[in-house]
Amino acid sequence: MIDVLAPNATIGILGGGQLGRMLSVAASRLGFKTHIFEPAANPPAGHVADVITTASYEDEIALKAFAASVDVITYEFENVPTSALDLLESIKPIRPNRRALAVSQDRITEKKFLVDLGLTVAPFAAVDTAADLDKALSDIGAPAILKTRRFGYDGKGQARIMDAAEAPKAIADVAGAPSVLEGFVDFTHEVSVIAARGQAGDVSCFDPGENVHTNGILHTTTVPATLTGAQRMDAVLLAAKILNELEYVGVMGVELFVTKQGLVVNEIAPRVHNSGHWTQNGCIIDQFEQHIRAVAGWPLGDGKRHSNVEMLNLIGNDVDRIPEFAKDGSVAIHMYGKADVKPGRKMGHVNKITGAA
Amino acid sequence: MIDVLAPNATIGILGGGQLGRMLSVAASRLGFKTHIFEPAANPPAGHVADVITTASYEDEIALKAFAASVDVITYEFENVPTSALDLLESIKPIRPNRRALAVSQDRITEKKFLVDLGLTVAPFAAVDTAADLDKALSDIGAPAILKTRRFGYDGKGQARIMDAAEAPKAIADVAGAPSVLEGFVDFTHEVSVIAARGQAGDVSCFDPGENVHTNGILHTTTVPATLTGAQRMDAVLLAAKILNELEYVGVMGVELFVTKQGLVVNEIAPRVHNSGHWTQNGCIIDQFEQHIRAVAGWPLGDGKRHSNVEMLNLIGNDVDRIPEFAKDGSVAIHMYGKADVKPGRKMGHVNKITGAA
Repeated sequence: MIDVLAPNATIGILGGGQLGRMLSVAASRLGFKTHIFEPAANPPAGHVADVITTASYEDEIALKAFAASVDVITYEFENVPTSALDLLESIKPIRPNRRALAVSQDRITEKKFLVDLGLTVAPFAAVDTAADLDKALSDIGAPAILKTRRFGYDGKGQARIMDAAEAPKAIADVAGAPSVLEGFVDFTHEVSVIAARGQAGDVSCFDPGENVHTNGILHTTTVPATLTGAQRMDAVLLAAKILNELEYVGVMGVELFVTKQGLVVNEIAPRVHNSGHWTQNGCIIDQFEQHIRAVAGWPLGDGKRHSNVEMLNLIGNDVDRIPEFAKDGSVAIHMYGKADVKPGRKMGHVNKITGAA
Repeated sequence: MIDVLAPNATIGILGGGQLGRMLSVAASRLGFKTHIFEPAANPPAGHVADVITTASYEDEIALKAFAASVDVITYEFENVPTSALDLLESIKPIRPNRRALAVSQDRITEKKFLVDLGLTVAPFAAVDTAADLDKALSDIGAPAILKTRRFGYDGKGQARIMDAAEAPKAIADVAGAPSVLEGFVDFTHEVSVIAARGQAGDVSCFDPGENVHTNGILHTTTVPATLTGAQRMDAVLLAAKILNELEYVGVMGVELFVTKQGLVVNEIAPRVHNSGHWTQNGCIIDQFEQHIRAVAGWPLGDGKRHSNVEMLNLIGNDVDRIPEFAKDGSVAIHMYGKADVKPGRKMGHVNKITGAA
């Protein structure tokens, strides 16, 4: 059954960062208002939202009022506490659904889900103790990477282990949190698929982008990616398999390692994704509008690309380059309105058009 | 001197309609916040603005607080009362400048300004009384059109006179307001130039669009327009002449009639313009961002077009066609978030991409 949002309806968004900001703008294009729920003050999304609630995810009164004021709830941030989701879901629908969140909130659950679907992931083992880590390292071998099962992003909650002797430091780095050891994958490059599934079960993918990370943070995404036709098809079919299995509604980012043996799934993110920002200037309907369309029960855009794009993240002092970018007529600037520049903070991005598709 | 707006600065916008809404979104892309001043409640721009003030242009306390809270003031609406502008300008800069407003607020002042620049306008005469109208009709001839000198838009405050016998009805239609009689121009079609001038005096124009009106309201704008290379050049040079003479800062819409004898200026609008909405999906930097760039002291975009576009206004019940447009992957939808559908009300527009430029 398709639940088509009425004109002028309000979409509640959990999380008020740059993804919420760009979702809010996309919602406005389709005639919807947004209400942002965000614990931190002065959220970037608040500058372009109809209403903001500043409250913690433990504040039941605020959560109830938020849910009552909106027509549907979505999120830009997958680590919303379960208790908050339970309460919200008892009042208004949440899209994408809870299963997508449950799967992606825990790296082990996610990997098992992907393996059950017949997809390839890096070798992995659960690590709760130093003894678990020793065992996992002897099974998987070094180099490897220890990641907390929950709440990791942009390289946070991760420790590289180049040699078994580094195990104690790695355990200290993750502060004893339940973790997973992942074996290194011998990949040539990383790509991601920004995939969407509508309420009718239709799936639409944007062309895969090729990602380069620096210090664990996405640096650039380039379309078209270096892929054979067969790899491009594999990437899209694999993403569709994930979305269909989850009965997903919305946009998902699926990160893939390209190896000689085929595509290996690195991780999935049940939301619009940094590696999909290029769609803002490469497609008529971008990933943000695609997500809103799915959540609102609208038909999805076809994912077609009119231009080739290189997306560059502006991290910390990269914002000093804005005057240079502003002079380049082939560059679209997207700033996030963050009050302070900090090292490692995503301040904005630019999409450079490199030609017609 | 170039007054470059600081990152995260706030741009005050007089008027909260769809133009303010799309200006606000463009401002957010460059990292600016907006504060909307609008007498009517629930303004479309308010859904995507940081702050809204709901107050009349006679409310001096509200005007002062608004001006104090922003870094620069611009407008989406040229009929702001002079007393409000005087007060605001004593506190913060207004861009585009007062002269542009003074010229465009009065059709006679505007026509005289254009004629003094050596440009061609329709034959015209000031009409304050029935006797003036009889004299003007005998000089200019019928058919002609009587328009109020001030506050007219979208065909409002206008009366067509096909025959001198219709003069009394025309005077009644404009309710005796100071008016201008304009002779009909024998034109093949109408085009408009969306021109921008930066604080450094640089001028940048988008490719002219070809406009079709229905019942006095813009129906479609198509790019590229039917123009010879020489006409296209004339249109752009003529627009630049107007902006330079006014020492204009921002985007202006210049409507032109194409005749066998050359281009005739219909009217100018000192703001972003409905006939420039196609730039949202045809250019990397659209008219809204171009205006914000000028106001903020940034370099202007080069006006380059990557796609051919047909913009269609959605008036009143045209919104019933949204489900049809939503299925078309070549169509970008831009809704204005207006609460009620009314006949003649601009509810949104769609940009259909008709090919690569």
